[in-house]
Amino acid sequence: MRIGIDIGGMTIKASVIDHNYHIITKKIIETKADELTPEGVVKNIESMMEELLEENEGKDKCEAIGIACPGTIDTELGRVVYSNNIKWSNVPLIELLKQRFEMPMSLVNDADAAVLGEVLNGAAKGKRNAVMLTLGTGVGGGVILDGKIFQGTLLGGCELGHMVINTEGRRCTCGRKGCLEMYASASALMRQARRNMVQYPNSILNEWCQYDTRIVDGKMIFQAEREGDYAAGVVVKQYEENLAIGIANMINIFRPEIFILGGGVSAQKEYLTNRLQKLVEGMCFGGRTGGIPPIVTAELGNDAGMIGAAYNFTK
Amino acid sequence: MRIGIDIGGMTIKASVIDHNYHIITKKIIETKADELTPEGVVKNIESMMEELLEENEGKDKCEAIGIACPGTIDTELGRVVYSNNIKWSNVPLIELLKQRFEMPMSLVNDADAAVLGEVLNGAAKGKRNAVMLTLGTGVGGGVILDGKIFQGTLLGGCELGHMVINTEGRRCTCGRKGCLEMYASASALMRQARRNMVQYPNSILNEWCQYDTRIVDGKMIFQAEREGDYAAGVVVKQYEENLAIGIANMINIFRPEIFILGGGVSAQKEYLTNRLQKLVEGMCFGGRTGGIPPIVTAELGNDAGMIGAAYNFTK
Repeated sequence: MRIGIDIGGMTIKASVIDHNYHIITKKIIETKADELTPEGVVKNIESMMEELLEENEGKDKCEAIGIACPGTIDTELGRVVYSNNIKWSNVPLIELLKQRFEMPMSLVNDADAAVLGEVLNGAAKGKRNAVMLTLGTGVGGGVILDGKIFQGTLLGGCELGHMVINTEGRRCTCGRKGCLEMYASASALMRQARRNMVQYPNSILNEWCQYDTRIVDGKMIFQAEREGDYAAGVVVKQYEENLAIGIANMINIFRPEIFILGGGVSAQKEYLTNRLQKLVEGMCFGGRTGGIPPIVTAELGNDAGMIGAAYNFTK
Repeated sequence: MRIGIDIGGMTIKASVIDHNYHIITKKIIETKADELTPEGVVKNIESMMEELLEENEGKDKCEAIGIACPGTIDTELGRVVYSNNIKWSNVPLIELLKQRFEMPMSLVNDADAAVLGEVLNGAAKGKRNAVMLTLGTGVGGGVILDGKIFQGTLLGGCELGHMVINTEGRRCTCGRKGCLEMYASASALMRQARRNMVQYPNSILNEWCQYDTRIVDGKMIFQAEREGDYAAGVVVKQYEENLAIGIANMINIFRPEIFILGGGVSAQKEYLTNRLQKLVEGMCFGGRTGGIPPIVTAELGNDAGMIGAAYNFTK
C-alpha cells in the first residue's frame, strides 16, 4: 500500500491506498496555513502520516508516500516553489519529511495529481493520454502523456487556465487579458449570472435568491436554465461556448484519448458534456470528419489528488 | 547515411544526409500535384531516390529513408490522410514506396520534421524539448518532447496555428473565429499592412509599392518600421503583440527549453526576437520572476524538414 496526502487551502487529507487504488482509511485536518508556519503545517502532516502508518502496522508494508500541493512545485527537488493558496514559498517539503520518515516520497502539483488519479482509477481508467480541466475558483488543469504526468520541461508548465482565448477580453489576476480562467471558471459563471440577475429582474434566480446576487451558485444557474429562465440561459450558453473554445484549443494541441472536466461545474455531468461534445466537435481542426475524443466528467472528486499523488511515477 | 525527402506544394526536395546531419547532395524537382496523380508524384519521388542511391553507391550504406509531407499524416501507417497543399487524401505513401525499396522508411508531417531538424542540428541543437512556430502563409508548428516529435495521441494533434486567441476575432479558414493564424502568419502581417497603406496614404510603403498594395511583403513592412514609418509601426506593434500572446500560451503549456520561430518573418532574427522576448516575459505565468525560455529564429531554413525526416525516431 501507499499513503497519499492532499494539501489544500482549507484542509489536508491523508489516506492509505491499496494497489487497486482504493482508499482504505482517510484522515482530514484543517490546514490552518494562516495561523501556522510551514514547519507547523509539516508537523501536522507528520502526525497524520504516523497515525496512518501505526494503524496499518503489520497489515501491508507502506512502500511510498505521495503528496499533492497547489502551486508551482519543483518535483525534482520535492520543493514547493510558490503556493498562493497556502502562502508558502520555497518550502523544501520532502527534505523536511525525510528527516522523520525513511521511504520513497514524491511531491506533485495537486491538479496534476488529480488527473493522474482519474487516469488510474476514475473517469479515464485504462487510458494512457488524457487532459483534464478543473473548473473551480480558477481553472486548473493537468495533462497525462503515455501514462505519466506531463508538466513541461521547465518550472511553471501546464498552466492551462492561463491560455488567452480573448485578446480583447477581461483582465485576469495573472496580468494578461482574456485568460480561459476569466470565462470558464465557476467564479466566472457566477459573475455572469450576477450581472444577468441585475439586468433581468424577472429572472427566476432573483426569486430563488431574494435578489441577493451573492447567493447564486453554479447549481442554481444550471437549474434555472433547465427550467427555461432566459437570463440563466444566456449565461449558460455563453459559458459553454467559451469553455468549448478552451477545450478545442487543447484538443488541437494534445489530441488526447479522453478529455476530463472536474470541479463544481462538472456536477452537471452529461447535461453539460453532451452539449460540449457537439460544440467542440464543430470547433476542432478536422473535428467533424475525424472526430474528437470523448468529453467526460471526473469521478473521484476530492479523492483523485490523494490517489494520483500516492501512485505518481516521478521521484 | 540516410535519405531525407521533403514534399512541398511547389517542389519536392531530396537529400543524402550524413550522421552529422550534414547534407551531402540535394535534388529538387517540381511537385506538379495539380497535373499528376498521387501515383505519378510517387514515381517521381522513386526516381529521385534511385538517383541518390546510385550516386552514393559504394560510399556509405543508406540505412533509412524519411519523408516529410504537409497535412494530416498517419505516421503509424505511413499514410497521407489529407493534405490540402498537394490535394492528396488517403495516399498509402510508404506502402507504395516499399514495393520498390527495401529499407526502413518513415513518413512525418513537414512542420514536425522541421522542428526535429532544428533540434538535431539547428537553432535548438542540444536541446531535448522545443516548440517551433512557422510563420508563413499559415501558422504551422511542432513540438519536441524528450528528443522526440510530439504529435498528440490521436490524428490531427499539434495544430498550434488553430489555437483561438480572440473569440471575437477574425474568421479563420478552419471555421473558427480568431485563430492565431489570423494574426501571426506572414499573410496576416501583409493584410494588416495593406489596410494601413490605404488608411495612411503618406506611408513610405505606398512610395515603395507605388500604391500597389499587393506588392508589399514582410521585409518591406519591417524595413519601413525601422525607418520610423507610422503606418508600418502600428502594424508591426500589433503583429508582435498577437504573436507574443500565442507564444506565451504555448510556453504556459509546454515550458520548453527553447522556442523557435521559422518561416519568412523569422528573417528579422534578433530584431524580432529581442522585442518578443520582453513581451512574452511579461505575459507568461510567473515569467517576470521565473524567467522564460529563449526565443530564437530557425537556422536550417528549407533543409530542416529533410534532416528531421531522415533522422526521425518514429517507425
